[in-house]
Amino acid sequence: MSGTWATFGVDLLLELGGKRGREAVATALRDAIRSGRLSPDSALPSSRSLAAELGLARNTVADAYSALTAKGWLSARPGSGTRVAIVSLSLPRGAPSRPRYQGPALRFDLVPGRPDLANFPRAAWLRASRRAFNAAPNDLLGYPDPRGLVGLRTALTEYLGRARGVRTDPDHILICSGFAQGLSLLTATLARTGARTMSVESHGMARHRDLIEHNGLSLRPVDIDESGARTDELTDSDAVLLTAAHQFPLGIPLSSARRAAALSWARRQRAVIVEDDYDGEFRFDRRQVGALQGMSPDLVAYIGTASKSLAPGLSLAWLILPPRLLADVIETKRLTDGYTGVFEQLTLEEFIRSGDYDRHIRRSRLHYRQRREQLVAAMQPTTSRVIGIAAGLHVLLELPDYSAADEIALHSRANRAGIGLETLDGMRFRSDPTARAGLVIGYGTPPDHSYRAALVALRELVG
Amino acid sequence: MSGTWATFGVDLLLELGGKRGREAVATALRDAIRSGRLSPDSALPSSRSLAAELGLARNTVADAYSALTAKGWLSARPGSGTRVAIVSLSLPRGAPSRPRYQGPALRFDLVPGRPDLANFPRAAWLRASRRAFNAAPNDLLGYPDPRGLVGLRTALTEYLGRARGVRTDPDHILICSGFAQGLSLLTATLARTGARTMSVESHGMARHRDLIEHNGLSLRPVDIDESGARTDELTDSDAVLLTAAHQFPLGIPLSSARRAAALSWARRQRAVIVEDDYDGEFRFDRRQVGALQGMSPDLVAYIGTASKSLAPGLSLAWLILPPRLLADVIETKRLTDGYTGVFEQLTLEEFIRSGDYDRHIRRSRLHYRQRREQLVAAMQPTTSRVIGIAAGLHVLLELPDYSAADEIALHSRANRAGIGLETLDGMRFRSDPTARAGLVIGYGTPPDHSYRAALVALRELVG
Repeated sequence: MSGTWATFGVDLLLELGGKRGREAVATALRDAIRSGRLSPDSALPSSRSLAAELGLARNTVADAYSALTAKGWLSARPGSGTRVAIVSLSLPRGAPSRPRYQGPALRFDLVPGRPDLANFPRAAWLRASRRAFNAAPNDLLGYPDPRGLVGLRTALTEYLGRARGVRTDPDHILICSGFAQGLSLLTATLARTGARTMSVESHGMARHRDLIEHNGLSLRPVDIDESGARTDELTDSDAVLLTAAHQFPLGIPLSSARRAAALSWARRQRAVIVEDDYDGEFRFDRRQVGALQGMSPDLVAYIGTASKSLAPGLSLAWLILPPRLLADVIETKRLTDGYTGVFEQLTLEEFIRSGDYDRHIRRSRLHYRQRREQLVAAMQPTTSRVIGIAAGLHVLLELPDYSAADEIALHSRANRAGIGLETLDGMRFRSDPTARAGLVIGYGTPPDHSYRAALVALRELVG
Repeated sequence: MSGTWATFGVDLLLELGGKRGREAVATALRDAIRSGRLSPDSALPSSRSLAAELGLARNTVADAYSALTAKGWLSARPGSGTRVAIVSLSLPRGAPSRPRYQGPALRFDLVPGRPDLANFPRAAWLRASRRAFNAAPNDLLGYPDPRGLVGLRTALTEYLGRARGVRTDPDHILICSGFAQGLSLLTATLARTGARTMSVESHGMARHRDLIEHNGLSLRPVDIDESGARTDELTDSDAVLLTAAHQFPLGIPLSSARRAAALSWARRQRAVIVEDDYDGEFRFDRRQVGALQGMSPDLVAYIGTASKSLAPGLSLAWLILPPRLLADVIETKRLTDGYTGVFEQLTLEEFIRSGDYDRHIRRSRLHYRQRREQLVAAMQPTTSRVIGIAAGLHVLLELPDYSAADEIALHSRANRAGIGLETLDGMRFRSDPTARAGLVIGYGTPPDHSYRAALVALRELVG
């Protein structure tokens, strides 16, 4: 056997059974096309290569190709070799469809929760990726520690301590595939080790609440006032999920007194605080607040993510775990997906170590601050009020002139006008027709060139 | 506010409270270092940058830096700016430790289940990554369809049809984070929709069995004979996990008669066959066998992975789902981690479309075939027998002269000699001291330069 057959051309699986002639090859090819296994326009191996692979004379395969080409099953064009004919002879199958999980195309995308993807530092990321990949020993491409690469965990220890006030060490960090997986690992572990209930803020992401219930915990909402979540409503829950630095979507931080109250509640109840620090890097007013985790690393499980600071598509997040949960959460990770892919971990480690991450955060902070200021200015002439601190990627636009019924009508009008946004009621734990009306606006998503037009459309909508 | 503070230098979170003087800055810095938030050797922002950020005079910060440097908390060196002193003043913390989930270093790593990582096509992968990334519109870096990128699903439809005999379309493919997650999604979904039991082959990966039980299904072993898994033992299970193309670790394919029997069992019982096609690309003897899935796409859930064909660190796998499981599995994915990261999906799509994947598979096939032949030759002088077809990345070495007790002793000797391998008994569903003895040898892992020495060590071990 020559080396040639093994290293040249495309792979094609043909099961000939016992027969070895031209007819057997043609029949096997026709069956593969008819059954849909071979898609229209697929390239076939050269007759030389396929013949070598099947242990046949080259002419046997070449003759089969010619016969099928003559009958319209295959097409042979100079320069592109032999391909399955475009004319579909296969059974009807579902065509590659538009993803069903994306809504209709929007003229202006102001849906909260996403960063400006045009701002993703593509060139710096590719450079970091090449440097990291070229420096990585082969071992690092294999099965990693279920907690993720120790290099990235070390870089995060330093970065999160310095920039977010997190106190930890690389042994207590677990890298996971995005915030949702982090919350899923934590809640599944809590449920497995005896927890029954989790408190959540009265307003937040519905998909986080779905996820918590899916993992076996009952939800208990706590109200939010001007100091943040009402910690006196935590009572005997086993855990609470808090957006302490910047409540989502109301946009206010948890006050110092409430922070202290939450921690003493957790200590008293032996409960766990899960801190969702989704956009903690983006505070614009020189009054950054550190993570709750830094005050009591033994009571708080912290979740940070690259989805807002870089891009959701990276699907990277980090859990900082209190010692008593560490082993059980690692075990849950091991038993559900084993580990998170290392290629982007290598790149992120290099991106942080080189200072690129700090530079990107600071550039983004300026960018989002300007966007927020433009939004606030654009809405001045209206009766709406911007609520919350100068931070993050979204604002709550309170609508004092609107009822909850008006809010629903407004949402429909926005949809018809091609403006994507969320309503306050849509983020409430339980819909409440008597509550104040508002819109939750993400200002990170529109591209620069359409941001002004998006603001004009929003102003006209609110009126 | 100038743009400077927002885009230059490193981020540092300092909470000054109400005080604004040099002492307040020094105290905040000292507290951050003492608490361990600021790690030894962390770089601090320049005094100009930090002053701008805190809204203080530059000298206030410069004076605080000088005072702390004089007292040994900070060190200032020309060219590297101001850093936290290496002398650790922080509370003792766990040092960045060697990952606990890796065993001791091995002289010869013959543990089965991993490819030759030196063979990973780094240069081609980086090129594909750059091409894919440069061509990707911004949208693709955001939250994707939970099934993964439609481009990769389309490329896999074409590739798997051609090379593995899989019949599907992009709508029925779900991209996930490795084989373990695929099996976890499937078994969790089956358990949630009423399944109670899953049959498994009597020999296989213990961690797969752990995962199935963790997800709520009871395990039922089926024996394996020379035709593969004993399909007559499937009885009333709700599902079965089969390594049909190449039983792991026994190395034999499921016979045609058994394939037909498994499918008619599944149809009769309304049961699901989960096909683990972990190394289906690597058959060396011109008798490739297509996936079971291609015979009945409505009865078989297929799992393929890049962990053996490229590298485990990629953490990419694909589920081909029968229509009746599709919606429920997508929902499980949505509720556990939402979606798999898109960066490596973009690269893999480009890698397949460009023909690089076929080239890599064919090169690897030659490489592993040669390794297997060298191993077979090296073991000729011993009484051991190589079992199974010429395929994949491992062999079962049967040891007719050994008892099960001898096998345990042999494993200990291998460990002491620094040879990593698995025993047949270690992969059995239930340990059986009366069964035949054997070693499971992975020949993909050792680097080229030590492979011959590894074979000599193995031969001496077996004797």
